[in-house]
Amino acid sequence: MSTDLAIRFDDVRGAAAQLAGHAHRTPVRTSRTADERCGAQLFFKCENFQRMGAFKFRGAYNTLSRFTPEQKRRGVIAFSSGNHAQAVALSARDLGMPSVIVMPQDAPPAKLAATRGYQQGDARSEVILYDRYREDREALGARLAEERGLTLVPPFDHPQVMAGAGTAALELIEDAGPLDALVVCVGGGGLISGSAVAACHLLPQIEVHGVEPEAGDDTRQSLARGEIVRIETPKTIADGAQTQHSGRLTFPVIQRLVKSVVTVSDAQLVATMRFFAERMKMVVEPTGCLAAAALLEGALELRGRRVGVIVSGGNVDLAAFAGFIGGARPGGG
Amino acid sequence: MSTDLAIRFDDVRGAAAQLAGHAHRTPVRTSRTADERCGAQLFFKCENFQRMGAFKFRGAYNTLSRFTPEQKRRGVIAFSSGNHAQAVALSARDLGMPSVIVMPQDAPPAKLAATRGYQQGDARSEVILYDRYREDREALGARLAEERGLTLVPPFDHPQVMAGAGTAALELIEDAGPLDALVVCVGGGGLISGSAVAACHLLPQIEVHGVEPEAGDDTRQSLARGEIVRIETPKTIADGAQTQHSGRLTFPVIQRLVKSVVTVSDAQLVATMRFFAERMKMVVEPTGCLAAAALLEGALELRGRRVGVIVSGGNVDLAAFAGFIGGARPGGG
Repeated sequence: MSTDLAIRFDDVRGAAAQLAGHAHRTPVRTSRTADERCGAQLFFKCENFQRMGAFKFRGAYNTLSRFTPEQKRRGVIAFSSGNHAQAVALSARDLGMPSVIVMPQDAPPAKLAATRGYQQGDARSEVILYDRYREDREALGARLAEERGLTLVPPFDHPQVMAGAGTAALELIEDAGPLDALVVCVGGGGLISGSAVAACHLLPQIEVHGVEPEAGDDTRQSLARGEIVRIETPKTIADGAQTQHSGRLTFPVIQRLVKSVVTVSDAQLVATMRFFAERMKMVVEPTGCLAAAALLEGALELRGRRVGVIVSGGNVDLAAFAGFIGGARPGGG
Repeated sequence: MSTDLAIRFDDVRGAAAQLAGHAHRTPVRTSRTADERCGAQLFFKCENFQRMGAFKFRGAYNTLSRFTPEQKRRGVIAFSSGNHAQAVALSARDLGMPSVIVMPQDAPPAKLAATRGYQQGDARSEVILYDRYREDREALGARLAEERGLTLVPPFDHPQVMAGAGTAALELIEDAGPLDALVVCVGGGGLISGSAVAACHLLPQIEVHGVEPEAGDDTRQSLARGEIVRIETPKTIADGAQTQHSGRLTFPVIQRLVKSVVTVSDAQLVATMRFFAERMKMVVEPTGCLAAAALLEGALELRGRRVGVIVSGGNVDLAAFAGFIGGARPGGG
């Protein structure tokens, strides 16, 4: 692998060392029912069982744990209404540093509560709400970072965040053995870029496939165009993949190492959420269903192969989850 | 351990050898949130991730795999509307023998469908329905067994079923290391008796505690009276623990090796089901919540200890599960 990508395999290996004893080594699970349905042998890497419920902990902890003493003393700032917020808040607590999380004031109350929960015990930490229709998040963040000397950690477009995310694929391959393919959801591209770097180093013949929600296929478009395409915020239940474009650092990795990006519909995500709950007894958030849905619902055929599937997270509001799994079975589900 | 109990540790070790490559070695999971709530260090043995969704596969497969060629040719019969039915059907399919499962005609359609699903591909296998208000299940079963030469496998009161169940505790201790206590749900006593035999052999100082639903505390009563007490079929959401009495083989093991049996309410089971879904991203059936509920809801205090907790299964109808987790939060939950 040439050195002009934002990260190399050594960065992923370094992140794994950094995370040892702090992140969970999540289980790799199999399901004969899933295998029969796809005609392939699937290995599910269960990042829904990661600390704070998603792979995001890996990148956040890897980054925050490398702060200088001065950075640690002043603390971290992040913008997110989702898993990145919780990942930064929890990593900061583990490392004894203050965190400031900037969230839209209409963020789901459960996510607000979870983020504040992780900040408990540190009086210097806080959630700052902003009005996403009136205020400029970037300007607000820049001002806060400046005033308080906080270090900003972006959700995906950062080498240590990408390398941390890649440890999920590293562990998966260590535990499942050689794989022919790896299927990963795509939002901003942090997980798939880190994972592709790890997988392609360990198994040079592996095919890496990305999966986006049908409504938000910016990365697929970007690959076709050969440059980063920006879209409107997509309407999809896969809230972790509601990104408008991939990152300046993640996209070149995807271009180089990812074979294809396919899409699945929200109805296919719901069918997969039901499959995980009914057959594998797991709570998986819509975004976490993307990779598996591509295989279980037929968007991607990998018959006869050994396939790694990253289940990226499980943070879905219980009432919403009950609605998804308890509702009428969607057509074709 | 004296030899007058129905099983010894060697039977559990033998069952583990029999199950290798056939049962899943289920993960042992931890949760800092659970630990903080109980003031103990909990190790959850996730039998909801076992094949067919419950520990019952262990006992059924251990028993069926030891059939003589003649027994295998003729097949197996079991009575159950629950996990034992599915465990026997799936084990029989794996072993290429016919299974006849006798279920009440008002059994949940999902359980009927699941059992028939496991029987697919074997034309000699069938589900036989009976009217539980008019027909005598025992007589029906005896007649079928006689006519067809089928071998009856009971759900818990059988040495190989008990020894198979005990492999869950064996694996838990192998993976979690030394434990101070083990907490196990109690229905007919198959799981707790097998587990106690394994645990007390490996860790002679361990305390084994049982947990029953409040409405069905026959085993607690039996221990107090020093003999098997029979109760009316209890009304509880923990359908796997709706037994009227423990077994002739299981009770003496419980008497000898179990330190206490405590009870939890259905509301506490629902609170625990929510905890598992929200914080540990797992689907756990009500019976599977019994052991954890005792700790998380305060029926059993084991502060400062390393405690193994068996999560016995995850087979709950999705619509019912959605109702439990999506409903109004029960008081104190």
